[in-house]
Amino acid sequence: MDARARIETELGEILSMNAPLAEVAAGPPALAAAMRYAVFPGGARIRPRLCMAVAEACGEDQPSTTDCAAAAIELLHCASLVHDDLPCFDDADLRRGKPSVHKAFGERLAILTGDGLIVLAFEALARADVLHPHRALQLSRIVAGQAWECEHEIDLSQYQRAKTGALFAAATMAGAASTGAEAAQWSLLGYRLGEAFQVADDVRDVVADASELGKPVGQDRTLGRPSAVERYGLSGAIKLLNGLVSEALAVIPQCPGIVAIRALISAEASRLLPGKLARHAA
Amino acid sequence: MDARARIETELGEILSMNAPLAEVAAGPPALAAAMRYAVFPGGARIRPRLCMAVAEACGEDQPSTTDCAAAAIELLHCASLVHDDLPCFDDADLRRGKPSVHKAFGERLAILTGDGLIVLAFEALARADVLHPHRALQLSRIVAGQAWECEHEIDLSQYQRAKTGALFAAATMAGAASTGAEAAQWSLLGYRLGEAFQVADDVRDVVADASELGKPVGQDRTLGRPSAVERYGLSGAIKLLNGLVSEALAVIPQCPGIVAIRALISAEASRLLPGKLARHAA
Repeated sequence: MDARARIETELGEILSMNAPLAEVAAGPPALAAAMRYAVFPGGARIRPRLCMAVAEACGEDQPSTTDCAAAAIELLHCASLVHDDLPCFDDADLRRGKPSVHKAFGERLAILTGDGLIVLAFEALARADVLHPHRALQLSRIVAGQAWECEHEIDLSQYQRAKTGALFAAATMAGAASTGAEAAQWSLLGYRLGEAFQVADDVRDVVADASELGKPVGQDRTLGRPSAVERYGLSGAIKLLNGLVSEALAVIPQCPGIVAIRALISAEASRLLPGKLARHAA
Repeated sequence: MDARARIETELGEILSMNAPLAEVAAGPPALAAAMRYAVFPGGARIRPRLCMAVAEACGEDQPSTTDCAAAAIELLHCASLVHDDLPCFDDADLRRGKPSVHKAFGERLAILTGDGLIVLAFEALARADVLHPHRALQLSRIVAGQAWECEHEIDLSQYQRAKTGALFAAATMAGAASTGAEAAQWSLLGYRLGEAFQVADDVRDVVADASELGKPVGQDRTLGRPSAVERYGLSGAIKLLNGLVSEALAVIPQCPGIVAIRALISAEASRLLPGKLARHAA
């Protein structure tokens, strides 16, 4: 099974374990349905894929543990999207090309959906692995520590950016930890990739069209949010992005699969921008 | 150290580990400050005290594990109060006799505060115990399972009641599990006590004054919420409460400290109602 299929399977199992289909089918719209709606269909699943790529590079020996770790990180990401979209934050009507959770299910269910997904992430980790309980606990500490770090920001306008970096670092560290490898040395790669992803997002926010994005264009400016494009101009932002990717490639720790993960990250990074811009930058 | 002191110490350590005082002091009001505000000063801390009482009854052998479990349950409880008070739910201005979190810090910080407290609960559990990693993982599964159960309710008007029962059962089960005792047999006690607590709350909602409650009186009726008093009348509700407490006492599992925990629960239950009503009921 490829990484993407493993992720979807694991997420599907976690969510259906907790929300049997019969119950989801029962109206009125239940929380379980809202939670599935928030997770499926997914976006690029970039965080869990990163987690799996690192695990593979470290010599994965217990794929079920990696699956849980990757799924937990994606669940936390989905939770934060649901809460970020709420009226008091971004007031976003669209997410991944469909109505946001609070638009589809109402604000109360949206708040509970985010809460439920956070809890579910930790439940998945706690169920991870009876063979290596120490590993499972470490994963829980890593994920919680990173999720918490992103909540630490004093300046709310910065907090979504901080969250991106923290969750990318959670992905790389958890990938390593799921194989028993030392986690800390993988954090810098995560932060660099998170920043690159964020800058690419700033660029797409300006140049893409809404159908490509699955959400409104020009949101950063509308919401008065910091943006690399605003700050450095379009070509400056693209230069910054390329620099961050190079740095990321340079800080990959020594590991059995270093050649493969380097190639994978290069390939993924080249897809961060719409085709026309990637060519422009090359 | 008595149970109450242990709980406050543990909560203080968890929150200050994650939010150094210097940072809390830095304005503008930071999330860390909002989180402390949501946790201190506490209410009766009834869930963590129940957790500790069960652990003691089971022959507690690792107090630091119990402390983490008790604190995690209280953190989840505080998280749910913060989110329950939000404008789209109860729109409550007061909590524990002071402005609710969203009144004091704004709605955005209130949402993040609840999220942060949930994460912190699981971080505390993951740090619980390196001597007994299996125990720590089981605690995480119990707490997540119960927190999730309460989110399962389809009918939102029922969900706060369901949450009370589920978290009380988390408290009794986690207390047992923190000592390595079998958790499942302790769940019924938790559910009965949770229901008793809820009925007592319904009664107090009608008869207490706001200074006693620390929140507005008559909220159930205002919010159209189910209430045992509405349903059975005042004396019917008191009768129900007494029946639930008797049942709770009857279902306490065999354990080394059964006499002591029975006495403790009796004493606590007699304090659930304001003095005049308790006398009336006796």
